[in-house]
Amino acid sequence: MNKPKEELLKIITDALSEEQFDYSPKELYEPIKYTMLLGGKRIRPLMTLMACDMFGGCVEDAVYPAIGLEVFHNFTLIHDDILDNASIRRGKLTVFKKWSTNRAILSGDTMFAFSYNYFFKTKERFVIPVLKIFNKTALEVCEGQQYDMNFETEKAIKIDDYVEMIRLKTAVLLGACVKIGAVIGGASEEEATHLYNFAENLGIAFQLKDDILDIYSNEEVFGKKTGGDIVANKKTFLYLKAIELSDKEQKATLDYWFGLTDTDEDNKIHSVKEIYNDLNIKLVTEAEISKYYKKALDSINAIKIDNQKKEVFFDFVETLMNREK
Amino acid sequence: MNKPKEELLKIITDALSEEQFDYSPKELYEPIKYTMLLGGKRIRPLMTLMACDMFGGCVEDAVYPAIGLEVFHNFTLIHDDILDNASIRRGKLTVFKKWSTNRAILSGDTMFAFSYNYFFKTKERFVIPVLKIFNKTALEVCEGQQYDMNFETEKAIKIDDYVEMIRLKTAVLLGACVKIGAVIGGASEEEATHLYNFAENLGIAFQLKDDILDIYSNEEVFGKKTGGDIVANKKTFLYLKAIELSDKEQKATLDYWFGLTDTDEDNKIHSVKEIYNDLNIKLVTEAEISKYYKKALDSINAIKIDNQKKEVFFDFVETLMNREK
Repeated sequence: MNKPKEELLKIITDALSEEQFDYSPKELYEPIKYTMLLGGKRIRPLMTLMACDMFGGCVEDAVYPAIGLEVFHNFTLIHDDILDNASIRRGKLTVFKKWSTNRAILSGDTMFAFSYNYFFKTKERFVIPVLKIFNKTALEVCEGQQYDMNFETEKAIKIDDYVEMIRLKTAVLLGACVKIGAVIGGASEEEATHLYNFAENLGIAFQLKDDILDIYSNEEVFGKKTGGDIVANKKTFLYLKAIELSDKEQKATLDYWFGLTDTDEDNKIHSVKEIYNDLNIKLVTEAEISKYYKKALDSINAIKIDNQKKEVFFDFVETLMNREK
Repeated sequence: MNKPKEELLKIITDALSEEQFDYSPKELYEPIKYTMLLGGKRIRPLMTLMACDMFGGCVEDAVYPAIGLEVFHNFTLIHDDILDNASIRRGKLTVFKKWSTNRAILSGDTMFAFSYNYFFKTKERFVIPVLKIFNKTALEVCEGQQYDMNFETEKAIKIDDYVEMIRLKTAVLLGACVKIGAVIGGASEEEATHLYNFAENLGIAFQLKDDILDIYSNEEVFGKKTGGDIVANKKTFLYLKAIELSDKEQKATLDYWFGLTDTDEDNKIHSVKEIYNDLNIKLVTEAEISKYYKKALDSINAIKIDNQKKEVFFDFVETLMNREK
């Protein structure tokens, strides 16, 4: 039997609370503590433990690498918030807004280095394979972030390039989380790779779902106003698909609205959404999501393990895919 | 017999030239390539190979970790230049000035991750011990940089705290370089630690020497105007020692000059230097350097190895300590 998700999550929060980051100089560690305590859903370390448990491994061996992945993820948020000039994260001021860009740069660097510490805290035979997966992924995440930055100024973005960007920026880390868990759990290279592919495709589907939710969710459930991506001229999957499918007139309208920064937001959202609706963009995107969702399921199904053991991941997929915020 | 320094340096430059950083996205890797090609004296990787060779190890096993240390060092320069708002590095524009702060942040992160790659490229039995040394050091370097930033605004800095700052910011990385070389060279933990202490103390002496050279060097040899630290109100060892030893009047004069930013530079340098001279600050600092220099020699002398094998390090110390720029 799988360990229930709640039990795994408790293992993670307990391990996280062991480390309070009360080191000197406090100017360096304070923003780290702040970021780690902001919470978040701890999805990544949870996936690591789920993967380890699925293969019958000892989750205690995976818990510190799982924490390392969470610390790394939080480091990327600190630096990304500088790059994106974002003021709010999880309802609180971002590190560079609360303190300064310099503090955020250096605290981020420190967190990145700190995350490696955790990978030494597993059985010795796992350290090198696990660190190799982690390090490769860390590089890919940086590359994804750079592509994202490039897209802000690039005029013609191919949809494949967009998907590659979200794969690198988000999906590979989910892949690494489960692969590391799988390796520690005793999976073969082939099984670990299947699970990696599962999480990677799920990650892409998850991001595309994000693009839909930003525009088509129920505002009460979503918890904020919809259409933020349109207001911010973000080149999401929906936008890129609309550009691809639009006729000359629709394209001109899209170009017009996405060329404006300060304008009547409601009018802009309404006009863009009208084109999206005319082009069936929601449906087209959902079809794309299904494609990655199916790839993910094919990958996990390829693992020769009792389906019952995969249940926790199937539940996870359900939760992620049916979410409305 | 030791391998000559020139031979070791060639091994490093050859290994460095294997990696041209021609990856995508080019926006990410271009600044990395630029930074790595700016050159520098490659002192850190050289120290790694010298240490490995001293213990009779195979320098080929140490060359990639040595490169990793050099890549890491260059990463710290990219981020430090943002933090220090420095425009010029090795005679060229710094990364954040040439491109942007965002590019410099992300390229730096990528370099940091990239540096870890090299530590996997040695014999498997060395990977974990060497990575542990490296990772601990990376954290300390971040801490040192934060102390340095703190000192900019702190009023009363203790001399011990200043030395601790330069130890963390500069000296520990030199320690790590030789310790990693020693471990790969087959040194015992005790021998490796002695060599670490040697390089760490040498690093502190080196930095204090820097503080002297900035004010007391021959400008023709130094290659730039002296007194830059005084103009920039930098709280160097010389300044802190002067504050410690000054009478009320001298302290008031120092406080006056170090409270000004835009002022007649020559007059400022002359006035501050006059106090330094009255207080024999150069001599006092040289005595302090000798202290660390002696500690360094005691540490290397404690290694039970033929003195002839240490020759290359003794030469190295001579060169560093007698330099005039």
